[in-house]
This record gives sequence, C-alpha cells and structure tokens, in this order.
Amino acid sequence: MRISDCLLKAKYLVVILISLIFFPGAQGHEDSMKPLLLALFILLPAAKLAGWLVERWQQPAVLGELLAGVFLGNLGLVGLHALDYLKTDPGLEILSGLGVILLLFEVGLNSSLADLLKVGLSSFMVATIGVVLPFGLGWLVSSFLLLEHSLYAHAFIGATLCATSVGITARVLQDIDKIRTREAKIILGAAVIDDVLGLIVLAIISGMIIGSSTGTGVTAGSIVWLVTKVAIFLAGSLVLGLFFVPRLMRQVAKAKSKGMLFTFALAFCFLLSYLATLIGLAAIVGAFAAGLILEGVPFQELLHEDERSPEEMLHPLSTFLVPLFFLHMGIKIELASLFRVEVIGLALALTLVAIIGKLACGLGAMERGVNRLSIGLGMVPRGEVGLIFAGVGLTLNVGGEPVLDEAAFAAILVMVMVTTLITPPLLQWGFGRRKRI
Amino acid sequence: MRISDCLLKAKYLVVILISLIFFPGAQGHEDSMKPLLLALFILLPAAKLAGWLVERWQQPAVLGELLAGVFLGNLGLVGLHALDYLKTDPGLEILSGLGVILLLFEVGLNSSLADLLKVGLSSFMVATIGVVLPFGLGWLVSSFLLLEHSLYAHAFIGATLCATSVGITARVLQDIDKIRTREAKIILGAAVIDDVLGLIVLAIISGMIIGSSTGTGVTAGSIVWLVTKVAIFLAGSLVLGLFFVPRLMRQVAKAKSKGMLFTFALAFCFLLSYLATLIGLAAIVGAFAAGLILEGVPFQELLHEDERSPEEMLHPLSTFLVPLFFLHMGIKIELASLFRVEVIGLALALTLVAIIGKLACGLGAMERGVNRLSIGLGMVPRGEVGLIFAGVGLTLNVGGEPVLDEAAFAAILVMVMVTTLITPPLLQWGFGRRKRI
Repeated sequence: MRISDCLLKAKYLVVILISLIFFPGAQGHEDSMKPLLLALFILLPAAKLAGWLVERWQQPAVLGELLAGVFLGNLGLVGLHALDYLKTDPGLEILSGLGVILLLFEVGLNSSLADLLKVGLSSFMVATIGVVLPFGLGWLVSSFLLLEHSLYAHAFIGATLCATSVGITARVLQDIDKIRTREAKIILGAAVIDDVLGLIVLAIISGMIIGSSTGTGVTAGSIVWLVTKVAIFLAGSLVLGLFFVPRLMRQVAKAKSKGMLFTFALAFCFLLSYLATLIGLAAIVGAFAAGLILEGVPFQELLHEDERSPEEMLHPLSTFLVPLFFLHMGIKIELASLFRVEVIGLALALTLVAIIGKLACGLGAMERGVNRLSIGLGMVPRGEVGLIFAGVGLTLNVGGEPVLDEAAFAAILVMVMVTTLITPPLLQWGFGRRKRI
Repeated sequence: MRISDCLLKAKYLVVILISLIFFPGAQGHEDSMKPLLLALFILLPAAKLAGWLVERWQQPAVLGELLAGVFLGNLGLVGLHALDYLKTDPGLEILSGLGVILLLFEVGLNSSLADLLKVGLSSFMVATIGVVLPFGLGWLVSSFLLLEHSLYAHAFIGATLCATSVGITARVLQDIDKIRTREAKIILGAAVIDDVLGLIVLAIISGMIIGSSTGTGVTAGSIVWLVTKVAIFLAGSLVLGLFFVPRLMRQVAKAKSKGMLFTFALAFCFLLSYLATLIGLAAIVGAFAAGLILEGVPFQELLHEDERSPEEMLHPLSTFLVPLFFLHMGIKIELASLFRVEVIGLALALTLVAIIGKLACGLGAMERGVNRLSIGLGMVPRGEVGLIFAGVGLTLNVGGEPVLDEAAFAAILVMVMVTTLITPPLLQWGFGRRKRI
C-alpha cells in the first residue's frame, strides 16, 4: 500500500468518524437539545442534593441551590470550562424563566386576595419606603464616590437600588413554611407595588435622560399614562379575572376531559405573565395575579372523581423547574467580579445602603405584633431586576457618554449578587428570632 | 407654540413611548420569554380543545393536536402571519423536544422489559422487514422516476423511507388505551431496533457516498464499530441500569427528602437521552430505555407517606409538554408544499411505497392471534427522522452535485407529513377492526 493510499484511507476514516459523530440518526434536530439534556442531568440532582444538605443545617433549600449554582458556574476559576456553556444555554434560560413564573403562580394560588388587601396599606407603605430610601441613599453614595459623574448617573444608580426581586423571598418563605403568615402577605403585596414604583422611577429618569439629549423635559402626561396603564392592567385583570375566570372554568369543566382545567389554568397564568411584560412589568407579577385570581375558583367542585386539582398538578412542574431558576441565578454569579479592587469601594457602599434602605422599609408595616425585621429582610434581594435597570443605564447616553460606565455596572452587579445570597439565611434567622421572643 | 417646538415635542413623545414599550421594567431579560408566553397561552388550550373535539368523534386526541398545529401553522395561506414565529421559536422547540422525551419515558415506565424481550424476535423481524422493504421499494421508485439521478440518490431516497418515528404511535396507543397490548410491545421493541438499523443504513450509504468522492469504499470495520457502539450502549445501559439504578434509588430514598426520587428519575431519563444522542441514536430511544429500567424499581416501598411516585409526578409534566410536541409537529407541516405540481408524482409514489413497506412488516410478528395490520400501521409514521436523513442528503455531494435535489427533498417532506397525519385514524381503525372479529 502506498503512502498516498494510507493517507486517503486515514482521511476517509476521519470523515466517516466525523459523520458518525455529527449527523447520523436523529442528531441533527437535537443539536439544541443535547447541551440541555446534559445540563439537566447535572443540575437536577445537584440542586436537590445541595438543597437537602443545607436543610440539614436548618437553612432554606434555595440557599443550597444558589450555592450549587455558584459552584458550578465558577469552576472556570480552577480551570474547568466544560460547564461554562450553562451561563448562556438558551434552553436553560427558558426553563428557568418558566420556573420562576410557575413559582409565583403557585404562591398566588396559595394566597388570598382578601388577605392581601387587608394588609394593603402596610404593603403600600413598605413598598414606598423601600423605593424612596434606597433611591435617596444610592444617589447620596454615588454623588460622594463618583465625583466626576453626572447628576443623571447618581439618579440612575439610585434607581437600580429600588426594585425588589421577590422570587428568592417567596421561595424562602415556602421553604421555611412561612408563606401563609401576615408578614408574607405584606411582602408579596409590597413586591407587586414595588415593581410598579420601580417602573415609574425608571421611566421618569430615563425619560429625563432622553429628554436632556433631545432638549425637552419629562412630561407629567407620559408618567400619568404609564401609571394609568399599569393600574388598568392590575385592577382590570383582577376584576375581570374574578368575574370571568370562575365562569370560564365552569364551562371548561363541563367538557369532562381530564387535564382540561389544569391546561386552562396554566394558559391563564401564561396570558397574564405575557400581558405584564407587554405593559413593562415583570412576568412574575402577572403570574402572581393569575394565581390570586384562580385561588378563588372552587376547583374541588369542578374536578372529576380521580382528577387532581390544578394546584396539585402544578407541584411536579415546580419541583422540576423552580430549582433550575435558582441554580441558574447562582451560575450567573461571577465570583471573580466580587473581588475587583477598582470597584470594591463603590460596591460595598452600594450594597450597604441597599440593605439598610430595605431593612428600614419594614417599619412601614402598621399591624401590631408583626415581624418588621423579617419584612425588611424579605425586601432585600434585588435579583435580576436591578441588573436590567443597570443594563438600560449602559445604553442611555448623556452628552455622548453612557450614563453608567462599566465600573458602576460591576458595582451594581456585586450589590445584586450579595443581596441575593444573604437573604435566605438572614430571612430564616429573622423568622426564627421571633419564635424565641 | 412654534411648529419646530411641536415637532420636537412629538419626537420626544415617540421616544418616550418607544422607551416605555421596549425597555422599562423587567422586559429586557424576558425578551426570549415573551413570544414563548404568548405561544403557550395560545397553544395549550388549542391543543386541549382540539384533542377533546376529535375524541368526541372517536379519534385519538393526538390527531386533534396535529390538526390544530396544521391550522395554526398555515394561517399564512390566508394572509395571517402573526403566528409564523411559532415555526422557529426556540423556546417552543425546546419544550416540544422535552415533551417527546418525557412521552417515551412515560411509555417506558409503563412497559416491562421482560414482556418486551418475550416478543423480541417478532420485534426484530418487524423492524428488519420494515427497513429492508421500504428501502428496496424506495430505491425502485426513485430509479424509475428519477432517471437522471445517480445510483447514490436512489439509495439515499430508499434510506429516508426506513426510519419509523415512534412518538406518534406511542401517543395513539396511549390515547386509545392499547399501550399495554402485545402489539404495542412488538411495535415499541421494533421501533428501537428500527432506529438502530436506520442508523446503520445511513452510515453505510453516506459512507459510500463520501467514499465515492474520496475514492475509497465503506469499510466493514467502521460499520462493525458502529454496531458495537450501539450494542454497548443499549445492552450496557440496560444491564448496568438494572443492577445499579435500584441500588441508587434506595440510597436516594434514605435522604427522606420529598421529590428526591422524582428528581433522580428525571435526571436518569435525561442522562440516557443524552448518551443516546451522543452515540447517534434518537434521544427518545434513551428516554424509553430509562423508563424501562426504572419500571423495575419498587418505588412504592421507597416513598414517604404522602409522596407520589415518579410516574404520578411525571403525569402533569407530560400533560403540559407532550401536546406541545404534536402541535409543533403540525405547525411545521406546510400545506402549500403538499400541492406542488413538479413533485406530486414522486411524492405520491414514495408515500405509497412508504406505507406499503411498513404495512407488510407487520407480517414479521410471529405470535398467534396478534393484530398484524395494527402492528404494520403502528410502524408507518416517519416523523422527523426521515427529514433528518433527507437533510443529510442535501449536504452530501457526488461529483460536485448534492445527492438529493430540492424536488426530491420536497417529495420526502410530503411522505413524512402524510404518514404522520394518517397514522392516528388508521391505527384507531386497525385496533377497532379487531374487536369486531
């Protein structure tokens, strides 16, 4: 055999092997599934085991899931990059997004609108203080530490400290079995109002910034329109939902088809989540509202003999998807960015005022004997909402420069990560403290 | 007010409105979620209602889901393009991919390996006839109708007729409550063997084609290696699984953490699905194997008092995700391509021999009194596996020309769509016929 034959043979074998690896069978269309399948195989047991482990140390399971995520997401620090794709895998992104929506839907199904309205004024006070105080403190910190930045930058940094991300808190309250307490209701109500207020603050400030470059100011009219739009969505979906949804569900139940009620309940959750994002609110606000509305439907009367209620059917779904959300949150935390010298001062100061501002808002609760410390702690986590605000800041320009620079963005990132990670143990401690009194 | 002021004002309002629509609140990171949420809101009730409707006409629900998909996916024909994004939405792609994996996992959990092995020889015969006959008939049709095409094109078209896509059949058998019959076991076993044979056929033919351009032939060694690899995967996962998985599950149950068994069962399903794709098999073959292995685990002994078995926990997941797979399959069917004059002859001929070839394979079943017609019908649907084969054909070249041209690809597409759509009613009829005898 000549050498050229050998080379040809070798080349051919390589091609065959590559073809066997890359396209036979049903592989082609499963290209997007493959990394996801591997991710699910790794992440599901990791989340469950980590949750179980921290529970043995009397911590909420969600802390374990976050830490497992931080671990898996930062293996790059010791040279292992095989799992780096988890940070950006679109399948995981989508499943974790569904996870947090279903979590808030589940929480809504376990809350009663009447109970929420009963503590409505407290929720409103908590939310308002929790937006005004962090905003002011953030502005102050920024204007002391970032002397060369514009007024708009200070305002923008203040705004990023406003928005509470209620996913973590809702999950901790579930984990430690406090989701039906008065404190939980005040926090949940406040989180919805907080999201609305945050939206208004962001609209005003970005309006001012856009106005500054186009030479106009923010109009009162546009803000009123925003508030009206949000009010119409929230009130409208509640009123229409409470009137219309029980009737619809009764009709649906008449089909006597198994799983029909569950399917329509899910579809309703996805509808309100979608409408919430259309209006500019977080999808989870819509999911929570959908849960609240369906809580009032007497499913027990509508089910067939051996059919399970939508709430029971939802449980396996959330068992599958919710841990993926928190694991994914942990995976996105970059430990390296926590220790960058050039931003550490600003990061620490922002984190501190972010915590103080929200802790103080617990004082807004007006009921007697309510655990104000825990309410404040429950409002601490900023989750990704703050990051989205900061992301908007990177895209807005004042005098040709972006409002936020990369260092300010990194500091906000640290603030978000720290408030996310400290909430589970602190909240557990806050509620535990009360027992002993 | 001057005109320029008015214009400025108007421009500013436009900017504010755009900014309100596009970036306030939590919208940024939910960009990929938004179309999916809308899709889920539309598709979930559509699938359920369509399934319910066709069930009233004594048809399997999956037919309704497919037809609802065809309807929603072809609204473009009457000028409505708002839902065109469903054909390519990555979120829907991923959820429907998970759906069919969970369907075959569920089917595996309801099958027993011992029963499958009992009819193993029949399965093998059915699968072999069902690969050889369509392959030969496809070759014949192609060589009569495509005179100007190469030998390789005929072989390739023959190969695209081989692979059965068992998702549809498994779902129909579930719908009409025949999943535990002997016929079902023969079909399921044959589908696994069929996938392996299809993989080998594709490897041989694409090997020959690549060889023809590099001047070498396909080596027996590479084919033996492929068969060995697949055999190791199937036998290895079964043997190791049957030995190792019950022990693992017992350990897992000791943690006494709710949902732990379910999580590990899911993770095992995703692991085998992933490994199957690595080896070149369809993910659903791995999922089916995982279900078969877990079927042997005595979960009832391992559960806590009020914990549900993994199988029961799986049911809501499949209620949510499985219809999305069939709806999505329907959405991808382009009615317009069914009526293209230039391909209609080839398309009809291929569809005909595709059906005849698989119908005949039912004769391979050797048990007495078994419904051979239904077995043949159960092997008819080609699903997307045939399309993937055809897709490979578009990428392979012989003498600078692709093996398959666009018209041949379109004809194969028609064959896949027709065999998919006719299976549910025919299979229902096939099983019904038997009752009357």
